[in-house]
Amino acid sequence: MDLATIIGFLLSYILLIVALVIGAGVGVYVDYPSVLIVIGGTLGIVLINYPLDRITGLTKVMMKAFFNKSADTAELIQQLVGFAVKARRDGILSLESAEDEVSDEFLKKGIRLAVDGTEPEVIKTILETELEYMQERHKEGAGIFTSIADFAPAMGMIGTLVGLVAMLQSLSDPSAIGPAMAVALITTFYGSIIMNMFATPISGKLKVRSGEEVLQRQIMIGGIMAIQAGDNPRIVEQKLNAYLSPNKRKSQFD
Amino acid sequence: MDLATIIGFLLSYILLIVALVIGAGVGVYVDYPSVLIVIGGTLGIVLINYPLDRITGLTKVMMKAFFNKSADTAELIQQLVGFAVKARRDGILSLESAEDEVSDEFLKKGIRLAVDGTEPEVIKTILETELEYMQERHKEGAGIFTSIADFAPAMGMIGTLVGLVAMLQSLSDPSAIGPAMAVALITTFYGSIIMNMFATPISGKLKVRSGEEVLQRQIMIGGIMAIQAGDNPRIVEQKLNAYLSPNKRKSQFD
Amino acid sequence: MDLATIIGFLLSYILLIVALVIGAGVGVYVDYPSVLIVIGGTLGIVLINYPLDRITGLTKVMMKAFFNKSADTAELIQQLVGFAVKARRDGILSLESAEDEVSDEFLKKGIRLAVDGTEPEVIKTILETELEYMQERHKEGAGIFTSIADFAPAMGMIGTLVGLVAMLQSLSDPSAIGPAMAVALITTFYGSIIMNMFATPISGKLKVRSGEEVLQRQIMIGGIMAIQAGDNPRIVEQKLNAYLSPNKRKSQFD
Amino acid sequence: MDLATIIGFLLSYILLIVALVIGAGVGVYVDYPSVLIVIGGTLGIVLINYPLDRITGLTKVMMKAFFNKSADTAELIQQLVGFAVKARRDGILSLESAEDEVSDEFLKKGIRLAVDGTEPEVIKTILETELEYMQERHKEGAGIFTSIADFAPAMGMIGTLVGLVAMLQSLSDPSAIGPAMAVALITTFYGSIIMNMFATPISGKLKVRSGEEVLQRQIMIGGIMAIQAGDNPRIVEQKLNAYLSPNKRKSQFD
Amino acid sequence: MDLATIIGFLLSYILLIVALVIGAGVGVYVDYPSVLIVIGGTLGIVLINYPLDRITGLTKVMMKAFFNKSADTAELIQQLVGFAVKARRDGILSLESAEDEVSDEFLKKGIRLAVDGTEPEVIKTILETELEYMQERHKEGAGIFTSIADFAPAMGMIGTLVGLVAMLQSLSDPSAIGPAMAVALITTFYGSIIMNMFATPISGKLKVRSGEEVLQRQIMIGGIMAIQAGDNPRIVEQKLNAYLSPNKRKSQFD
Repeated sequence: MDLATIIGFLLSYILLIVALVIGAGVGVYVDYPSVLIVIGGTLGIVLINYPLDRITGLTKVMMKAFFNKSADTAELIQQLVGFAVKARRDGILSLESAEDEVSDEFLKKGIRLAVDGTEPEVIKTILETELEYMQERHKEGAGIFTSIADFAPAMGMIGTLVGLVAMLQSLSDPSAIGPAMAVALITTFYGSIIMNMFATPISGKLKVRSGEEVLQRQIMIGGIMAIQAGDNPRIVEQKLNAYLSPNKRKSQFD
Repeated sequence: MDLATIIGFLLSYILLIVALVIGAGVGVYVDYPSVLIVIGGTLGIVLINYPLDRITGLTKVMMKAFFNKSADTAELIQQLVGFAVKARRDGILSLESAEDEVSDEFLKKGIRLAVDGTEPEVIKTILETELEYMQERHKEGAGIFTSIADFAPAMGMIGTLVGLVAMLQSLSDPSAIGPAMAVALITTFYGSIIMNMFATPISGKLKVRSGEEVLQRQIMIGGIMAIQAGDNPRIVEQKLNAYLSPNKRKSQFD
Repeated sequence: MDLATIIGFLLSYILLIVALVIGAGVGVYVDYPSVLIVIGGTLGIVLINYPLDRITGLTKVMMKAFFNKSADTAELIQQLVGFAVKARRDGILSLESAEDEVSDEFLKKGIRLAVDGTEPEVIKTILETELEYMQERHKEGAGIFTSIADFAPAMGMIGTLVGLVAMLQSLSDPSAIGPAMAVALITTFYGSIIMNMFATPISGKLKVRSGEEVLQRQIMIGGIMAIQAGDNPRIVEQKLNAYLSPNKRKSQFD
Repeated sequence: MDLATIIGFLLSYILLIVALVIGAGVGVYVDYPSVLIVIGGTLGIVLINYPLDRITGLTKVMMKAFFNKSADTAELIQQLVGFAVKARRDGILSLESAEDEVSDEFLKKGIRLAVDGTEPEVIKTILETELEYMQERHKEGAGIFTSIADFAPAMGMIGTLVGLVAMLQSLSDPSAIGPAMAVALITTFYGSIIMNMFATPISGKLKVRSGEEVLQRQIMIGGIMAIQAGDNPRIVEQKLNAYLSPNKRKSQFD
Repeated sequence: MDLATIIGFLLSYILLIVALVIGAGVGVYVDYPSVLIVIGGTLGIVLINYPLDRITGLTKVMMKAFFNKSADTAELIQQLVGFAVKARRDGILSLESAEDEVSDEFLKKGIRLAVDGTEPEVIKTILETELEYMQERHKEGAGIFTSIADFAPAMGMIGTLVGLVAMLQSLSDPSAIGPAMAVALITTFYGSIIMNMFATPISGKLKVRSGEEVLQRQIMIGGIMAIQAGDNPRIVEQKLNAYLSPNKRKSQFD
C-alpha cells in the first residue's frame, strides 16, 4: 500500500472541492457533456496512439502507484551477503536450498543459473537483458500516462474552442455570454485536472517505483556475479552497499 | 488490422461531432477557406521541410498505424528455439529447409547467412546495420507526423491572426465582431484537431509499432548468433525469453 | 533542384495571400515599420548569437535547401561493389584509375589513401573525423535557422507589447483602439510567419539533407574499409545494402 | 552557510513586497483560501508523485541550498598530492595514519581500501558505484523541486479557472467583476511565485552543489587510483589539477 | 573584438528604440519600479540558483562574447605540422625550443609533457581531462545566462500579475484602466527584452566560442599524440585537416 499516493489524492481533491465550494458551488463545475468529451476524447486519442493490449493492462500498471510495497534494499543486501558467506563456506551448490527463501523471481532465476554452473558471461547477459527490457516496459507504462497528460488538456482546449465559437456566434443576448463562456472553460478545467492531478503524478510515481525496482535488480546482478566469482563476503558487502545512501547501509561484519 | 486505431478514431471523432452539435451545430464549424489554409498551408510547409519522395510515401507509412498485424513474439522465440534444437541435432546446414517456413525477410536473410557459413562478426554487422537503419527510417516516418503536429497549429494561429487583424480593422459594426472572431478562431480549432486528434497519435502508434518490430529483430539477431555459436537450446530459450515480460514467456522444456 | 522546397513555398505563400485577401485585403497586413522591427531585430539578435562569418555564409547554406541534387545511394553502392570486384581481381592499386571516375571529394580521398597503402586504422580515423566534423558544421548551419525560428516570434511579441502599451495609454478615442491593436498584432503575425513558414522548415530540410549526406559517407567509409580488407564483393554488397531500405536495394550478383 | 542563497531570497522577496506595496498594498494579494489551494494542492500532487520518505527528507535536502560549505578543491588536490608523496616515500601502508586527517567519509573509505591492499579494479568499482548512486540520489532530490516548479503553477491555473468560471456565472453585478477576477488571478500569482522564486532556483542550487561534490569525488577517485598505482607525485598533481580551472591550480613543486 | 556582437546589439537596440518612438515615445516605456523589480528580482533568483563566486565572475565570462579573438585554426594546424616535421628530423627533444613560439597555455603544456617523455596515455588523460572540465565550466558560464533568460520573463509575468490584480481591484475609474494595464504590461516587456535581446543570444555566442575553443584543443591533442607517436607529417596534416571544412584547409606539402 502506497500511503503517499492515497494521502496525496485525498489532500489534493479535498482542497479542489473546497475551492469549488468557495468558487460557485460544486454543481456549477459539473457538466456531463464536457466530462464525456474530455475523458472520452482523450481515451479515443490514447487508443489511436497505443495498441489495445497496453491500454487494457493500464489499470494493472496504475495499481502499482497505489499498492506497491517498497522492498527493503538494505535487507536485500544482507541476504545476498549471507548467500556469499554460505557459498564461500559450503560451495556454490549449497545455494540450491537458498532458492526457496527467495521470493523474488528475478533473484531466484539468477541463483538457479549460478547453481547450474552457467557461465558468468551468459548469466550476466540473461539477467541484464531481462532488466533492460523490464525497464523498457516500465517506461512504456509510465509513457501512456504521460500521453494522457498531453492529450487531456488538448481535448480540453478543443472543447473550449468549440464553446467559444458557439458563444461568439450569438452575442445578441449579453446575459448569456458569461455562462456560455463559463461552460466553454470547463473542458479546459477538466483537461487541466486530468493532466496535473492525475496523469502526471501517477506517471511520476510509476517512474520512481521503476527506479527502485531497477536499483534492486542491479544489486541482485552485482551480488550474484560477485558470489559466483567467489568474492570475499566483506568485499561483496562493500560492493553492494555502495549502491545505498551511507545512512541506510547495514553491515554484518562490524 | 489495428483495432485500437480504428476504435480510437471513431470514438474521438464521434465525440467531437457530438460536441459540435451541442455547441452551435456542425455547420457553424465548417469554413472551407479555413480548411484550405490550414491543411494546404501545413502541406506546403511539410514540403519545404521534407523531400518529395518521403511525402509521397507517407500514406503507406500511415497505413502501418491502421493495418499492422502485431506478430507474436513468444511464437517467434519458440520458432528460434526449434531451429536451435534442429541445428544442434542435424548441424546448421539442416536449417536450409527451415528458411522456407520463415516469412520474415530479415530472419530469412540471417539464416541464409548462417547456413552459408558467413563469419559471425560479419552476420552481426550486416543484421545490426540493417536494423539500425530501419529504425532510422521509421523515426523519419514518425517524424513527418510530428512535424505536421507542429505546423498545423502554427498555420492555425497564423490564420487566426489574419482574421483578428481583419476584425480589428472594422469594429464599426458591433454585431459583426462576434461572428468574425468566431471565424478567426476556426483555423486555430482546425490546427488543434489536426495536431491532437490526428498527427500526434498517428506518430505515437508508428513509434510503438517500430518499437515492436525492433524488439523482434533484436530477438532474431540474438537467436541467430546463439544458434550459430551452437548454444544449448535451453540457454537459447532463456536468453531470448529475457526480452519478454515474464507472463508472456513460453517454454518447450518445462 | 529541390522541387519539394519550391512547391512548398509556392503552395504555402499563395494560400497565405489568399487568406489575406479574404481577410481584409493584402494592404492591411503590410506595415513597413513592423517589417523593419521584426526582420531587423531578429537579424540583430542573430548577430549577437553567431559570429559574422557564419551569418555571411548563411545564404550559401540555405541554397542547399533549394538546389541540392539528392545523389542515388543505390548507384553509389553498385559503384563501390564494382571497385571491390576490380580490387579483388587486379589488386588495390588498380583503383588508382578509378579515382578519376569519382566526383565526390570524400570518396576520392578515401580511395587515394587506400591506394597509397595507408594503414586501415589511419584511413578510418581520418574519414570518420572528417565525417563527424562535417556533421557538426551542418548542425550549426541548421542551428542558425532554428535560432531565427526562436528569435523572430520573440521580436514579434516585443513589437506587439510596444504597440499594446501605446494603445492602452490612449484609450480616449474608442474608434482608434481596433486599428491600433491590429497594428500591434502585425509584428506577432510576421514573427509567426518567419518562424513557421520560413526558418523552421528550412532548418528541417537542411537536417534531412545532412542526414542523406552522412548516410552516403558512412556507406563510402564502409565500402573503402571492406575493399581494403579484401572482402568478397558479395559480402561487400550485402554489408552496404544493409544501409538501404529493402525495396531500394540493387544487386549485380542476382 | 550559502550566502548567495540568503541574499538572493532577501533581495527578490523584498523587491516583490515593494512591488505589492506599489501595486495595491500587500493586503490585496493575500488570500488564505488561495494559499491553501495552491500550497496544499501542490503538496498533494507531490505526494502522489513521490514516496513518503523522500518528501519527509525534503527539508534536509533543501537545507543544502542554504548551509553548504563549499570545500576547497585546490586544497583537496594538495592533500592528495601530499599522500602521494608520503606513499611513495614510506609505502602505501603509511597512509593508515593519514586516514585520521581526513574528514570526508568517501575519501577515508578509499584510502582504507587502498591500505588494505584491495585490488585497484575493486576499489574503482566500489568508489564509482558509490559516486554514481550518490549522483542519482542528488538528481532525485533536485527533481522533487523541479516537480514542485511544475505543479505549483498548474494548481495556480486550476484555481484561476475555478475563479473565472464562478465569476462568469454571475456577471449581473459589473462592479463585482474586477475584484472577482483579481481573486481568480491570485492563485496563478502564487503558483508563479512558488515556481520561479522558490522551487526552480532551489533545484538549481542543489544541482550546482551536487556538481561540486561529484567533481571533488572524481578527484578523490583519480587521486587514490594514482597513489595506489605508485605514480610520481608530480604526475599525480598534474592529473588532478587538470580538473581545475587554470587560475585556481596550486602546486607544491614550483 | 567580436564585431558581430557589437553590431548585433547596436542594430537590435536602435530598432527597438525606433519602435518605441513610433509607439508612444520612449518615455512611456520607462518605469523605474518595473526596472527595479525585473532586474533586481532576476538577480535575486540567480543568486539563489548559483554560488556567489560564479556570479561575480559573470562579467568576465560575458566579455568573451564581446572581445574574443577567434584564433585561426588552419594556422594552428600548420604550426602543429611544422612541429611534426621538426620532431621527425631532429627528435622530439628539439621541440623544447618550440615551446616558446607557442602562446596557448594548453598546447604549451602538452608539448612540455611530450618533451619530458611522459607516457602517451598519461599525456592524453591529462589533456583530455583538462579539456572536458574546461567544457564543463564553459557550459556553466553559458548556463547562467540561460537561467537569466528563464527568470527574467518569469519576473516580468509576476510583475504583470501584480499590476493586473491592482488594476482589477479598482475599476471604478474607466479612464485609469488603460494606463494601469499599460504599466502592468511593462514588466513583461522588460522580461522579454532581457530574455531575447540580451541573455539568450549572449548565452548562444558563449556556446559558439566554447565550441571553437574545444575544436582547437581537440586538434592540439590530436597533433601532440601524432607527433609523439612519430607519425609522418603528411599523415599528421591529413589527420588534423579532417577537423576543418575542406575550403579552409591549407597544406605545406602541395
